[in-house]
Amino acid sequence: MEQLQNDLFLRACKKQPVERTPIWIMRQAGRYLPEYRAVRANNDFLTMCKTPELAAEVTIQPVDLIGVDAAIIFSDILVIPEAMGMHLEMFDGKGPVFDHPIRTEKDAENLKQITAQENLKYVLDAISLTKKELSGRVPLIGFSGAPWTLLTYMVEGHGSKTFSNVKKLIYNNPELAHKILNKLTNAVADYLSAQIEAGANAVQIFDTWAGMLSPRDYLVFALKYVNQVISKIKRNDEPIIYFPKGVHYRMRTTADCGADVIGIDWTIDLAKARDKIGNKVAIQGNLDPTVLYAEPGFIRREAKKVLQSYGEGNGHIFNLGHGILPDIKPEHAKALVDFVKEDSQAFHDNDVSTKVIKI
Amino acid sequence: MEQLQNDLFLRACKKQPVERTPIWIMRQAGRYLPEYRAVRANNDFLTMCKTPELAAEVTIQPVDLIGVDAAIIFSDILVIPEAMGMHLEMFDGKGPVFDHPIRTEKDAENLKQITAQENLKYVLDAISLTKKELSGRVPLIGFSGAPWTLLTYMVEGHGSKTFSNVKKLIYNNPELAHKILNKLTNAVADYLSAQIEAGANAVQIFDTWAGMLSPRDYLVFALKYVNQVISKIKRNDEPIIYFPKGVHYRMRTTADCGADVIGIDWTIDLAKARDKIGNKVAIQGNLDPTVLYAEPGFIRREAKKVLQSYGEGNGHIFNLGHGILPDIKPEHAKALVDFVKEDSQAFHDNDVSTKVIKI
Repeated sequence: MEQLQNDLFLRACKKQPVERTPIWIMRQAGRYLPEYRAVRANNDFLTMCKTPELAAEVTIQPVDLIGVDAAIIFSDILVIPEAMGMHLEMFDGKGPVFDHPIRTEKDAENLKQITAQENLKYVLDAISLTKKELSGRVPLIGFSGAPWTLLTYMVEGHGSKTFSNVKKLIYNNPELAHKILNKLTNAVADYLSAQIEAGANAVQIFDTWAGMLSPRDYLVFALKYVNQVISKIKRNDEPIIYFPKGVHYRMRTTADCGADVIGIDWTIDLAKARDKIGNKVAIQGNLDPTVLYAEPGFIRREAKKVLQSYGEGNGHIFNLGHGILPDIKPEHAKALVDFVKEDSQAFHDNDVSTKVIKI
Repeated sequence: MEQLQNDLFLRACKKQPVERTPIWIMRQAGRYLPEYRAVRANNDFLTMCKTPELAAEVTIQPVDLIGVDAAIIFSDILVIPEAMGMHLEMFDGKGPVFDHPIRTEKDAENLKQITAQENLKYVLDAISLTKKELSGRVPLIGFSGAPWTLLTYMVEGHGSKTFSNVKKLIYNNPELAHKILNKLTNAVADYLSAQIEAGANAVQIFDTWAGMLSPRDYLVFALKYVNQVISKIKRNDEPIIYFPKGVHYRMRTTADCGADVIGIDWTIDLAKARDKIGNKVAIQGNLDPTVLYAEPGFIRREAKKVLQSYGEGNGHIFNLGHGILPDIKPEHAKALVDFVKEDSQAFHDNDVSTKVIKI
């Protein structure tokens, strides 16, 4: 077994005692960093995903530059549909586009059955290489899109405000929706298992569009498949984080999905979330990402409120409530990380004598 | 006083007994109706807003064609910033755009102080004319954007996914944000009062982007000003509906804002909302608008679940959880309205003998 020099993140995921609250930032390997943009200037997005050396380089950047307590492999949730045969283009500012979205039985049949070893080997290689280069400084997180969120992109073809096409599918042809969701569930479970085998110390399941569903539809089309994914993942004790963005309902049922950690966005009261599900799972979040537009003094006050809202004790992983925005100043991200590292100590039991007595 | 032939909607707003649940549909005067598109084909959107005859015509269309229990004046929430001097363009499919968004002290100072009588007379005329043409068949609803949502559009210049500019404003220059919000609060209160004076039987305040705020920011930048608007509105007993879309937190505080009705979107459990705030206010909502893509049989089953979720008794106004989408078939909207009219009778006390005893 490797020896991690900083395992705060993993301990917090398991609700074990930590000296301070660990922090990482969703999309921390991204455009807000000039060092990332320098790599991106010479390579398109998918080339970066598919070239382990480049993926490892940008994955490690925020560990060096911002001081986060975990790295997350540089990749994209849409590599699964791409591996299934969908043609994906990434446009800066416009987001990803599939030019032939999945709308019919025939479209769905054309999706390739994939395995991570055969079709997403480049991600596994990127994980192995990153692990080597991190040499135990912090844990490495792998990730995947959740079946529902992948289905949404595959059916819409791009981001959507109304989600009309995927809603038409689930209401008018639920059998087909479930068929694709089943296929995705197998692919996601295999993919996350392979990431763990390749060295990921934890994995996160991003369900970015879960919150567009009514509470009942969420159970049927999103959470059910996340349950299945989690039960199929092969792991030792690597924690699983589920982040159903925008989901403010069915929190107790969500906390029973088998994940060790539930991620919440900034519209959810962290104290209430802890009251509801903090006995079962650790909680990750939830500073409003736009707070990082403000000056460091303001950022620190808002970060403090997040720490206070969770309160004392274990089981909190500090993060934003969504990915860091591309026009945030890196020094603001750094100010946040520095503050959380320093200030969160007061929320944990660091009295050695007490600890000894407890043991 | 006028005599309304159908006052179910107004009674439901006041939580008074009704024989069945009233229904209207947000954006019911809109592109999904071929009759609307026929008018729109020869007139641009703002011309329709500014021509009382055209506004009255499309306002009444869904009363005739779909059978809703209330009309809502055809207009747009952005007529206030437009009247304040901002140049507004409406693009089909792209939404509204202000080419010079408000970002600085100077921009804000250039906003005109307006009164509805002077600067939005065309809306008042449209209301008077529509009332005459409706001749008491159903009540007429007036509306305005809430100060926060207006500010959002004015600062962003157009719709946004991240709301970066308005968040920068409230975090980095809250004084300026509050200054504009105060200006808007006065304009909105005056505008809604004038609509009531012109004949609106009820008014709705649309806070479309309230849900982008953290719970604390919502209180400070959105709800506070809605409270002020409501306390300033001059009215007799015309009900006020507040619809803070996406807001799932601070519901009890929201229910204390002075509105008679709170609108909720489809992600909120109607039964839980009633438990929390149904003793104080009536509730409007909340079928997922995309359900109307499904076949009528499915629409009826989902509408039934909404009725069941609210349960028996008064204080429910049936509506979608957001505006009807432009590519919905009119016969699906009609199927919904017909079903709610028929099926909701079972949720109300229609036993005459019981009624007599109760009296």
